[in-house]
Amino acid sequence: MYEGAVQDLIDELGRLPGVGPKSAQRIAFHLLAVDPVEVRRLVDALTEVKARVRFCDVCGNVTQEETCRVCRDPRRSTTVICVVEEPKDVVAIERTREFRGKYHVLGGAINPIAGVGPDDLRIKELLTRLASGEVTEVILATDPNVEGEATSTYLARMLLPMGLTVSRLASGLPVGGDLEYADEVTLGRAFEGRRRINA
Amino acid sequence: MYEGAVQDLIDELGRLPGVGPKSAQRIAFHLLAVDPVEVRRLVDALTEVKARVRFCDVCGNVTQEETCRVCRDPRRSTTVICVVEEPKDVVAIERTREFRGKYHVLGGAINPIAGVGPDDLRIKELLTRLASGEVTEVILATDPNVEGEATSTYLARMLLPMGLTVSRLASGLPVGGDLEYADEVTLGRAFEGRRRINA
Repeated sequence: MYEGAVQDLIDELGRLPGVGPKSAQRIAFHLLAVDPVEVRRLVDALTEVKARVRFCDVCGNVTQEETCRVCRDPRRSTTVICVVEEPKDVVAIERTREFRGKYHVLGGAINPIAGVGPDDLRIKELLTRLASGEVTEVILATDPNVEGEATSTYLARMLLPMGLTVSRLASGLPVGGDLEYADEVTLGRAFEGRRRINA
Repeated sequence: MYEGAVQDLIDELGRLPGVGPKSAQRIAFHLLAVDPVEVRRLVDALTEVKARVRFCDVCGNVTQEETCRVCRDPRRSTTVICVVEEPKDVVAIERTREFRGKYHVLGGAINPIAGVGPDDLRIKELLTRLASGEVTEVILATDPNVEGEATSTYLARMLLPMGLTVSRLASGLPVGGDLEYADEVTLGRAFEGRRRINA
Protein backbone atom coordinates (compact mmCIF):
# COMPACT_ATOMS: atom_id res chain seq x y z
CA MET A 1 0.00 0.00 0.00
CA TYR A 2 2.90 2.37 0.67
CA GLU A 3 5.60 3.43 -1.74
CA GLY A 4 8.80 1.32 -1.90
CA ALA A 5 10.98 1.88 1.13
CA VAL A 6 8.15 2.49 3.64
CA GLN A 7 6.38 -0.73 2.66
CA ASP A 8 9.68 -2.65 2.72
CA LEU A 9 10.31 -1.48 6.29
CA ILE A 10 6.75 -2.33 7.38
CA ASP A 11 7.18 -5.81 5.86
CA GLU A 12 10.51 -6.39 7.60
CA LEU A 13 9.20 -5.15 10.97
CA GLY A 14 6.11 -7.34 10.55
CA ARG A 15 8.35 -10.42 10.43
CA LEU A 16 9.54 -9.82 14.00
CA PRO A 17 7.88 -11.95 16.69
CA GLY A 18 4.89 -10.25 18.31
CA VAL A 19 4.82 -7.38 15.81
CA GLY A 20 1.59 -7.40 13.79
CA PRO A 21 0.85 -5.29 10.68
CA LYS A 22 -0.57 -2.39 12.73
CA SER A 23 2.41 -2.27 15.10
CA ALA A 24 4.81 -2.54 12.16
CA GLN A 25 3.13 0.47 10.54
CA ARG A 26 3.20 2.41 13.80
CA ILE A 27 6.91 1.68 14.35
CA ALA A 28 7.76 2.53 10.72
CA PHE A 29 6.07 5.94 10.96
CA HIS A 30 7.71 6.56 14.30
CA LEU A 31 11.11 5.86 12.73
CA LEU A 32 10.27 8.07 9.75
CA ALA A 33 9.57 10.96 12.08
CA VAL A 34 12.48 10.64 14.54
CA ASP A 35 15.98 12.07 14.26
CA PRO A 36 18.15 10.00 11.88
CA VAL A 37 20.60 9.55 14.80
CA GLU A 38 18.06 7.37 16.61
CA VAL A 39 17.62 5.09 13.61
CA ARG A 40 21.41 4.98 13.24
CA ARG A 41 21.66 3.77 16.86
CA LEU A 42 19.14 0.99 16.21
CA VAL A 43 20.94 -0.02 13.00
CA ASP A 44 24.27 -0.10 14.85
CA ALA A 45 22.81 -2.19 17.68
CA LEU A 46 21.44 -4.70 15.16
CA THR A 47 24.73 -4.89 13.28
CA GLU A 48 26.79 -5.21 16.47
CA VAL A 49 24.64 -8.03 17.83
CA LYS A 50 25.13 -10.14 14.73
CA ALA A 51 28.83 -9.30 14.48
CA ARG A 52 29.86 -9.71 18.11
CA VAL A 53 27.42 -11.91 20.00
CA ARG A 54 27.94 -15.66 20.00
CA PHE A 55 27.05 -18.63 22.18
CA CYS A 56 29.25 -19.68 25.10
CA ASP A 57 31.42 -22.70 24.17
CA VAL A 58 30.70 -24.29 27.55
CA CYS A 59 27.08 -23.59 28.48
CA GLY A 60 25.39 -22.14 25.38
CA ASN A 61 24.49 -18.80 26.97
CA VAL A 62 24.95 -15.63 24.90
CA THR A 63 28.32 -13.92 25.20
CA GLN A 64 30.79 -11.68 23.42
CA GLU A 65 33.78 -13.77 24.54
CA GLU A 66 34.51 -17.47 24.04
CA THR A 67 32.76 -18.28 27.30
CA CYS A 68 29.98 -16.37 29.06
CA ARG A 69 30.11 -14.18 32.15
CA VAL A 70 28.86 -16.97 34.46
CA CYS A 71 31.28 -19.60 33.12
CA ARG A 72 34.19 -17.12 33.48
CA ASP A 73 33.30 -16.25 37.10
CA PRO A 74 35.69 -18.20 39.40
CA ARG A 75 33.46 -17.58 42.44
CA ARG A 76 30.62 -19.72 41.05
CA SER A 77 30.29 -23.31 42.20
CA THR A 78 31.27 -25.89 39.57
CA THR A 79 29.46 -28.77 41.27
CA VAL A 80 25.88 -27.65 40.45
CA ILE A 81 24.48 -27.11 36.95
CA CYS A 82 21.10 -25.50 36.32
CA VAL A 83 19.61 -26.59 32.98
CA VAL A 84 17.43 -24.00 31.21
CA GLU A 85 15.83 -23.69 27.79
CA GLU A 86 16.99 -20.25 26.66
CA PRO A 87 19.54 -17.54 27.54
CA LYS A 88 16.70 -15.33 28.82
CA ASP A 89 16.00 -17.97 31.49
CA VAL A 90 19.59 -17.49 32.74
CA VAL A 91 18.87 -13.79 33.18
CA ALA A 92 15.58 -14.52 34.99
CA ILE A 93 17.31 -16.88 37.45
CA GLU A 94 20.27 -14.53 37.93
CA ARG A 95 17.80 -11.83 39.00
CA THR A 96 16.68 -13.98 41.94
CA ARG A 97 20.28 -14.14 43.30
CA GLU A 98 19.36 -17.60 44.63
CA PHE A 99 21.71 -19.65 42.50
CA ARG A 100 25.51 -19.60 42.58
CA GLY A 101 26.35 -22.55 40.32
CA LYS A 102 26.75 -22.79 36.54
CA TYR A 103 24.15 -23.03 33.78
CA HIS A 104 23.50 -25.16 30.76
CA VAL A 105 21.33 -23.69 28.00
CA LEU A 106 19.56 -26.35 25.92
CA GLY A 107 18.46 -23.99 23.16
CA GLY A 108 14.81 -25.02 23.41
CA ALA A 109 12.64 -27.88 24.66
CA ILE A 110 11.51 -31.21 23.23
CA ASN A 111 8.51 -30.47 21.02
CA PRO A 112 7.52 -33.27 18.61
CA ILE A 113 4.85 -31.10 16.93
CA ALA A 114 7.44 -28.45 16.03
CA GLY A 115 9.88 -31.20 15.06
CA VAL A 116 12.30 -30.55 17.94
CA GLY A 117 13.75 -33.79 19.30
CA PRO A 118 16.45 -34.42 21.94
CA ASP A 119 19.14 -34.35 19.24
CA ASP A 120 18.24 -30.75 18.39
CA LEU A 121 19.03 -29.61 21.94
CA ARG A 122 22.46 -29.23 23.55
CA ILE A 123 22.09 -32.48 25.52
CA LYS A 124 25.28 -34.11 24.18
CA GLU A 125 27.21 -31.04 25.39
CA LEU A 126 25.60 -31.43 28.84
CA LEU A 127 26.69 -35.08 29.06
CA THR A 128 30.24 -34.08 28.07
CA ARG A 129 30.29 -31.56 30.92
CA LEU A 130 29.01 -34.17 33.38
CA ALA A 131 31.59 -36.74 32.24
CA SER A 132 34.39 -35.05 34.23
CA GLY A 133 32.63 -36.09 37.47
CA GLU A 134 32.94 -32.64 39.05
CA VAL A 135 29.20 -31.96 38.90
CA THR A 136 27.16 -33.63 41.62
CA GLU A 137 23.78 -31.91 41.25
CA VAL A 138 21.63 -30.95 38.28
CA ILE A 139 18.66 -28.59 38.67
CA LEU A 140 16.12 -28.91 35.86
CA ALA A 141 14.71 -25.43 35.28
CA THR A 142 12.88 -25.89 31.98
CA ASP A 143 9.54 -24.09 31.55
CA PRO A 144 6.56 -25.43 33.55
CA ASN A 145 4.63 -26.33 30.37
CA VAL A 146 4.15 -29.55 28.37
CA GLU A 147 7.40 -29.21 26.38
CA GLY A 148 9.45 -28.16 29.40
CA GLU A 149 8.08 -31.01 31.53
CA ALA A 150 8.77 -33.54 28.75
CA THR A 151 12.33 -32.26 28.44
CA SER A 152 12.92 -32.47 32.20
CA THR A 153 11.46 -35.98 32.39
CA TYR A 154 13.71 -37.05 29.50
CA LEU A 155 16.80 -35.55 31.16
CA ALA A 156 15.97 -36.93 34.62
CA ARG A 157 15.73 -40.46 33.20
CA MET A 158 19.15 -39.99 31.63
CA LEU A 159 20.85 -38.36 34.62
CA LEU A 160 19.52 -40.35 37.59
CA PRO A 161 21.35 -43.60 36.63
CA MET A 162 24.56 -41.54 36.62
CA GLY A 163 24.24 -41.13 40.41
CA LEU A 164 23.58 -37.38 40.26
CA THR A 165 21.25 -35.43 42.51
CA VAL A 166 18.52 -34.24 40.13
CA SER A 167 15.82 -31.71 41.07
CA ARG A 168 13.02 -29.83 39.34
CA LEU A 169 11.92 -26.27 40.21
CA ALA A 170 8.85 -26.21 42.49
CA SER A 171 5.43 -25.65 40.98
CA GLY A 172 2.89 -23.77 43.06
CA LEU A 173 1.09 -20.49 43.59
CA PRO A 174 2.87 -17.41 42.27
CA VAL A 175 3.85 -15.10 45.13
CA GLY A 176 1.58 -12.07 45.34
CA GLY A 177 -1.18 -13.80 43.37
CA ASP A 178 -4.76 -14.60 44.35
CA LEU A 179 -5.58 -18.21 45.21
CA GLU A 180 -8.98 -18.00 43.52
CA TYR A 181 -7.41 -16.99 40.21
CA ALA A 182 -4.89 -19.86 40.13
CA ASP A 183 -5.67 -22.50 37.49
CA GLU A 184 -6.54 -25.96 38.78
CA VAL A 185 -3.28 -27.58 37.67
CA THR A 186 -1.19 -24.98 39.51
CA LEU A 187 -3.40 -25.24 42.60
CA GLY A 188 -3.17 -29.06 42.44
CA ARG A 189 0.62 -28.81 42.30
CA ALA A 190 0.61 -26.41 45.22
CA PHE A 191 -1.30 -29.01 47.28
CA GLU A 192 0.99 -31.80 46.17
CA GLY A 193 4.09 -29.82 47.06
CA ARG A 194 2.76 -28.39 50.35
CA ARG A 195 5.36 -27.90 53.05
CA ARG A 196 4.87 -28.86 56.66
CA ILE A 197 5.20 -25.98 59.11
CA ASN A 198 6.99 -27.05 62.25
CA ALA A 199 5.98 -25.77 65.66
CA MET B 1 21.46 -7.74 32.67
CA TYR B 2 22.90 -8.99 29.38
CA GLU B 3 26.41 -8.53 28.06
CA GLY B 4 27.12 -5.42 25.94
CA ALA B 5 25.63 -5.74 22.47
CA VAL B 6 22.57 -7.81 23.46
CA GLN B 7 21.56 -5.30 26.13
CA ASP B 8 22.18 -2.39 23.74
CA LEU B 9 19.85 -3.95 21.19
CA ILE B 10 17.17 -4.66 23.82
CA ASP B 11 17.41 -1.02 24.94
CA GLU B 12 17.09 0.32 21.39
CA LEU B 13 14.15 -1.96 20.55
CA GLY B 14 12.48 -0.97 23.82
CA ARG B 15 12.42 2.65 22.66
CA LEU B 16 10.09 1.79 19.75
CA PRO B 17 6.40 2.58 20.25
CA GLY B 18 4.41 -0.35 21.63
CA VAL B 19 7.50 -2.46 22.32
CA GLY B 20 7.88 -3.19 26.05
CA PRO B 21 10.93 -4.71 27.76
CA LYS B 22 9.65 -8.30 27.35
CA SER B 23 8.91 -7.85 23.63
CA ALA B 24 12.27 -6.15 23.11
CA GLN B 25 14.00 -9.14 24.70
CA ARG B 26 11.97 -11.57 22.61
CA ILE B 27 12.75 -9.70 19.37
CA ALA B 28 16.46 -9.44 20.28
CA PHE B 29 16.75 -13.20 20.85
CA HIS B 30 14.83 -13.88 17.68
CA LEU B 31 17.30 -11.71 15.74
CA LEU B 32 20.24 -13.40 17.45
CA ALA B 33 19.00 -16.78 16.28
CA VAL B 34 18.00 -15.96 12.68
CA ASP B 35 20.17 -15.98 9.58
CA PRO B 36 22.33 -12.83 9.36
CA VAL B 37 20.73 -12.16 5.95
CA GLU B 38 17.39 -11.47 7.66
CA VAL B 39 18.94 -8.91 10.00
CA ARG B 40 20.76 -7.40 7.02
CA ARG B 41 17.39 -6.96 5.26
CA LEU B 42 15.95 -5.17 8.30
CA VAL B 43 19.02 -2.95 8.59
CA ASP B 44 18.81 -2.10 4.88
CA ALA B 45 15.09 -1.30 5.15
CA LEU B 46 15.76 1.04 8.08
CA THR B 47 18.63 2.77 6.29
CA GLU B 48 16.67 3.10 3.04
CA VAL B 49 13.65 4.63 4.73
CA LYS B 50 15.72 7.38 6.32
CA ALA B 51 17.72 7.97 3.14
CA ARG B 52 14.95 7.90 0.55
CA VAL B 53 11.57 8.64 2.12
CA ARG B 54 10.43 12.23 2.39
CA PHE B 55 7.16 14.12 2.62
CA CYS B 56 5.25 15.18 -0.51
CA ASP B 57 5.81 18.86 -1.31
CA VAL B 58 2.12 19.30 -2.10
CA CYS B 59 0.11 17.23 0.38
CA GLY B 60 2.53 16.06 3.09
CA ASN B 61 2.04 12.33 2.41
CA VAL B 62 5.11 10.07 2.48
CA THR B 63 6.86 9.59 -0.84
CA GLN B 64 10.19 8.81 -2.47
CA GLU B 65 9.72 11.48 -5.16
CA GLU B 66 9.09 15.20 -4.82
CA THR B 67 5.36 14.58 -4.84
CA CYS B 68 3.44 11.49 -3.72
CA ARG B 69 1.71 8.85 -5.81
CA VAL B 70 -1.75 10.41 -5.35
CA CYS B 71 -0.57 13.92 -6.23
CA ARG B 72 1.21 12.58 -9.35
CA ASP B 73 -1.85 10.64 -10.57
CA PRO B 74 -3.50 12.69 -13.37
CA ARG B 75 -6.73 10.67 -13.11
CA ARG B 76 -7.50 11.97 -9.62
CA SER B 77 -9.92 14.87 -9.24
CA THR B 78 -8.25 18.14 -8.29
CA THR B 79 -11.47 19.78 -7.07
CA VAL B 80 -11.85 17.74 -3.84
CA ILE B 81 -9.32 17.59 -1.01
CA CYS B 82 -9.61 15.14 1.86
CA VAL B 83 -7.84 16.40 4.98
CA VAL B 84 -6.31 13.73 7.22
CA GLU B 85 -4.00 13.69 10.25
CA GLU B 86 -1.33 11.19 9.19
CA PRO B 87 -0.03 9.37 6.09
CA LYS B 88 -1.47 6.11 7.43
CA ASP B 89 -4.93 7.66 7.19
CA VAL B 90 -4.34 8.15 3.44
CA VAL B 91 -3.65 4.41 3.14
CA ALA B 92 -6.78 3.56 5.16
CA ILE B 93 -8.98 5.73 2.91
CA GLU B 94 -7.32 4.47 -0.29
CA ARG B 95 -8.26 0.93 0.76
CA THR B 96 -11.95 1.85 0.67
CA ARG B 97 -11.65 2.88 -3.03
CA GLU B 98 -14.38 5.42 -2.26
CA PHE B 99 -12.39 8.57 -2.82
CA ARG B 100 -10.87 9.79 -6.09
CA GLY B 101 -9.69 13.28 -5.12
CA LYS B 102 -6.46 14.50 -3.53
CA TYR B 103 -5.34 14.48 0.10
CA HIS B 104 -3.84 16.93 2.54
CA VAL B 105 -1.90 15.49 5.49
CA LEU B 106 -1.86 17.79 8.51
CA GLY B 107 0.85 15.91 10.38
CA GLY B 108 -1.25 15.57 13.55
CA ALA B 109 -4.23 17.16 15.30
CA ILE B 110 -4.72 20.14 17.57
CA ASN B 111 -3.84 18.97 21.09
CA PRO B 112 -3.25 21.75 23.63
CA ILE B 113 -2.17 19.26 26.34
CA ALA B 114 0.62 17.92 24.11
CA GLY B 115 1.43 21.48 23.04
CA VAL B 116 0.26 21.02 19.42
CA GLY B 117 -1.45 24.15 18.12
CA PRO B 118 -2.77 25.04 14.62
CA ASP B 119 0.64 26.50 13.70
CA ASP B 120 2.29 23.10 14.21
CA LEU B 121 0.06 21.52 11.56
CA ARG B 122 0.26 21.93 7.79
CA ILE B 123 -2.71 24.33 7.72
CA LYS B 124 -0.85 27.18 6.00
CA GLU B 125 0.04 24.77 3.19
CA LEU B 126 -3.64 23.79 2.90
CA LEU B 127 -4.68 27.43 2.55
CA THR B 128 -2.03 27.94 -0.14
CA ARG B 129 -3.48 25.00 -2.09
CA LEU B 130 -7.02 26.38 -1.75
CA ALA B 131 -5.94 29.87 -2.89
CA SER B 132 -5.83 28.81 -6.57
CA GLY B 133 -9.63 28.41 -6.50
CA GLU B 134 -9.58 25.00 -8.19
CA VAL B 135 -10.74 23.15 -5.08
CA THR B 136 -14.49 23.37 -4.41
CA GLU B 137 -14.92 20.75 -1.69
CA VAL B 138 -12.98 19.83 1.44
CA ILE B 139 -13.71 16.59 3.33
CA LEU B 140 -12.51 16.68 6.94
CA ALA B 141 -11.35 13.17 7.79
CA THR B 142 -9.52 13.73 11.06
CA ASP B 143 -9.88 11.06 13.77
CA PRO B 144 -13.28 10.83 15.55
CA ASN B 145 -11.76 11.75 18.93
CA VAL B 146 -11.45 14.98 20.92
CA GLU B 147 -8.32 16.21 19.11
CA GLY B 148 -9.62 15.26 15.66
CA GLU B 149 -12.99 16.91 16.30
CA ALA B 150 -11.30 20.08 17.56
CA THR B 151 -9.11 20.19 14.46
CA SER B 152 -12.08 19.71 12.13
CA THR B 153 -14.10 22.37 13.92
CA TYR B 154 -11.16 24.77 13.65
CA LEU B 155 -10.72 24.06 9.94
CA ALA B 156 -14.45 24.24 9.18
CA ARG B 157 -14.64 27.71 10.73
CA MET B 158 -11.75 28.80 8.54
CA LEU B 159 -12.94 27.17 5.30
CA LEU B 160 -16.70 27.88 5.29
CA PRO B 161 -16.31 31.67 4.85
CA MET B 162 -14.23 30.88 1.73
CA GLY B 163 -17.38 29.50 0.06
CA LEU B 164 -16.17 25.91 -0.02
CA THR B 165 -18.31 22.81 0.48
CA VAL B 166 -17.02 21.37 3.75
CA SER B 167 -18.00 17.94 5.11
CA ARG B 168 -17.04 15.68 7.99
CA LEU B 169 -16.92 11.88 7.83
CA ALA B 170 -20.07 10.25 9.27
CA SER B 171 -20.03 8.96 12.83
CA GLY B 172 -22.15 5.90 13.60
CA LEU B 173 -22.14 2.19 14.25
CA PRO B 174 -19.17 0.28 12.84
CA VAL B 175 -20.29 -2.19 10.17
CA GLY B 176 -20.29 -5.77 11.45
CA GLY B 177 -20.45 -4.62 15.08
CA ASP B 178 -23.04 -5.30 17.76
CA LEU B 179 -25.41 -2.47 18.67
CA GLU B 180 -25.35 -3.41 22.36
CA TYR B 181 -21.56 -3.03 22.50
CA ALA B 182 -21.52 0.43 20.92
CA ASP B 183 -20.60 3.20 23.37
CA GLU B 184 -23.30 5.77 24.09
CA VAL B 185 -21.61 8.59 22.17
CA THR B 186 -21.32 6.48 19.01
CA LEU B 187 -24.92 5.27 19.39
CA GLY B 188 -26.06 8.87 19.96
CA ARG B 189 -24.26 9.94 16.79
CA ALA B 190 -25.84 7.05 14.89
CA PHE B 191 -29.30 8.32 15.94
CA GLU B 192 -28.45 11.89 15.07
CA GLY B 193 -27.17 10.90 11.63
CA ARG B 194 -29.93 8.39 10.87
CA ARG B 195 -30.93 8.14 7.22
CA ARG B 196 -34.47 8.00 5.98
CA ILE B 197 -35.31 4.90 3.99
CA ASN B 198 -37.57 5.70 1.10
CA ALA B 199 -40.35 3.37 0.04
